[in-house]
Amino acid sequence: MAKENETNNEIRRDSEGWITYRPEIKVLDCTIRDGGLMNDHLFDDKVAKAIYQACVDAGVDYMELGYKADKKIFAQNKFGIWKFCTESDIRKVIGDNDTTLKLATMADAEKCNYKNDILPREESVFDLIRVATYIHQIPIALDMIKDATDKGYETSVNLMAISTVPEYELDVAIETLAKSEVGTIYLVDSFGSLYGEQMQYLARKYLKAAKAMGKEVGVHTHNNQELAYSNTITSLIEGVNYLDATIDGMGRGAGNCQLELLLGFLHNPKYRLRPILKCLTDHIRPLKANLNWGFQIPYMLTGLLNQHPRSAMKFLAGDNKDDFLQFYDEITEENS
Amino acid sequence: MAKENETNNEIRRDSEGWITYRPEIKVLDCTIRDGGLMNDHLFDDKVAKAIYQACVDAGVDYMELGYKADKKIFAQNKFGIWKFCTESDIRKVIGDNDTTLKLATMADAEKCNYKNDILPREESVFDLIRVATYIHQIPIALDMIKDATDKGYETSVNLMAISTVPEYELDVAIETLAKSEVGTIYLVDSFGSLYGEQMQYLARKYLKAAKAMGKEVGVHTHNNQELAYSNTITSLIEGVNYLDATIDGMGRGAGNCQLELLLGFLHNPKYRLRPILKCLTDHIRPLKANLNWGFQIPYMLTGLLNQHPRSAMKFLAGDNKDDFLQFYDEITEENS
Repeated sequence: MAKENETNNEIRRDSEGWITYRPEIKVLDCTIRDGGLMNDHLFDDKVAKAIYQACVDAGVDYMELGYKADKKIFAQNKFGIWKFCTESDIRKVIGDNDTTLKLATMADAEKCNYKNDILPREESVFDLIRVATYIHQIPIALDMIKDATDKGYETSVNLMAISTVPEYELDVAIETLAKSEVGTIYLVDSFGSLYGEQMQYLARKYLKAAKAMGKEVGVHTHNNQELAYSNTITSLIEGVNYLDATIDGMGRGAGNCQLELLLGFLHNPKYRLRPILKCLTDHIRPLKANLNWGFQIPYMLTGLLNQHPRSAMKFLAGDNKDDFLQFYDEITEENS
Repeated sequence: MAKENETNNEIRRDSEGWITYRPEIKVLDCTIRDGGLMNDHLFDDKVAKAIYQACVDAGVDYMELGYKADKKIFAQNKFGIWKFCTESDIRKVIGDNDTTLKLATMADAEKCNYKNDILPREESVFDLIRVATYIHQIPIALDMIKDATDKGYETSVNLMAISTVPEYELDVAIETLAKSEVGTIYLVDSFGSLYGEQMQYLARKYLKAAKAMGKEVGVHTHNNQELAYSNTITSLIEGVNYLDATIDGMGRGAGNCQLELLLGFLHNPKYRLRPILKCLTDHIRPLKANLNWGFQIPYMLTGLLNQHPRSAMKFLAGDNKDDFLQFYDEITEENS
């Protein structure tokens, strides 16, 4: 696998560049999962079904439908069905998924009753369990990965908030995950704070550890500094094969890598842009008027300062949302 | 000069990365010039003066005030004073510029009566003449460069629309410009169609030709595919030292590299972000409501297809501006 990566880099550094394509690349749409953080997962069935159909028609490889959240932790009357992703709820909306599109759901460490709520794969509409973990939750994440693997699923792991983790700890975390049963380890830019050079450096680090154990690397970016798309391309050039994106960049705060930009870049003929543009026009833009995700100056500032965007989200929901200077002064105030 | 560039690359490829800074880097604000394409150069004096003051306060190196357009070609009653940049008009608004900020104006090949309208530098408020040329106008551009050099100005040249030029012709054009009196040759992504790898390749090409003749390279990007900022960073990492940007990305169509993102990235302590955020909040955002520049799906599509954004601008000014699918179908219609 490492050899394949070297070859790919070699090709791309030569004259072929983006003219050709790498068939190993997989695109994962996470519009409903990451976008659900903006609307408490309250998608109309019609909209959810339209996104699903767009992914099928566009040749997208995986679609993530939401979280497998523990109903003992989260009240069902406060969230949409995409927060819990029960088999029956999902099948009611999108059927049994008799397509080539694989379905994924996210299982958050400490927020998922995985032993009970994740059924064996042969009884499930899902193909891929995506474990999300902070570095201090890795022992739980490892158990979740093993549980999902034993039940027959493909697995991936999102190690979150790495931009605030010391490198010697990150190295141990990546090595530990690489030794687990997980199929794909994701490089995640939770705060949208990473520059291209940092992504390149981290992608090489992740790839080295993952490829040595026969695993893939994925990338999940946020658009706080308007680098989500370019950081995704930077990562794929290095050899990262699993690429997360959302329609219109729908996602928490500044949003994600835009699926339409990504499909415009990818040259595998199986991908088609038109169904995504149709869904964006008909179903996603009408949501944006109220939910208002995407690049904004306050997100740029939290990204720049390597902070969680929650202060920016709070500011943008307030009365002075256009006074960027006030927000700048607030978050750069002296701490002592 | 070439050696300096190699050293820079070496440093950046090591562990220092963005922690340090390269003192040779110069930032050029072109808000009024490129932004003027959105409002026929009709800036209020108050707004123009505020942008000027923000550039001074932010430690920006150059500010481009507009075009030196020929009044025989363009009717004065249809455009603001920033289209013509006469010495008296400029001095009326911003005075004699007794600051460290250098002032620039753009002289468009075939649209500027440069022999008459550009005064000797000692009589001028301007420091830098920026010649803009298409590849077929290079003989005129060379004469304009010589004229401005003889009059005592710093000079730069923007070679436009290179993404539609065959490479063997581009090579000749760059070599020819490198042999001229010009100080800085700009790598310009007119259609916002270039990816990071292409920018890297072109930056290396421009740098090789320019540095051999003791000249600098600049970069001017557009945000059609949301790559203006990342392409600017990619270029500077390669050794490009002159960086164009605009406040809030104000510029034609999808706009430019955002100055606030760029200053956030640059680590030379002479640059300050706060004055730009203040100007953006107080003066630029109020303009955006009407002028509506910035990334939009139709610009993404013209960028993707390596086309001038004029079809997207026309579409976005029409009644169906939100029907991106219709625009996609229009511009991908079969040509025969």
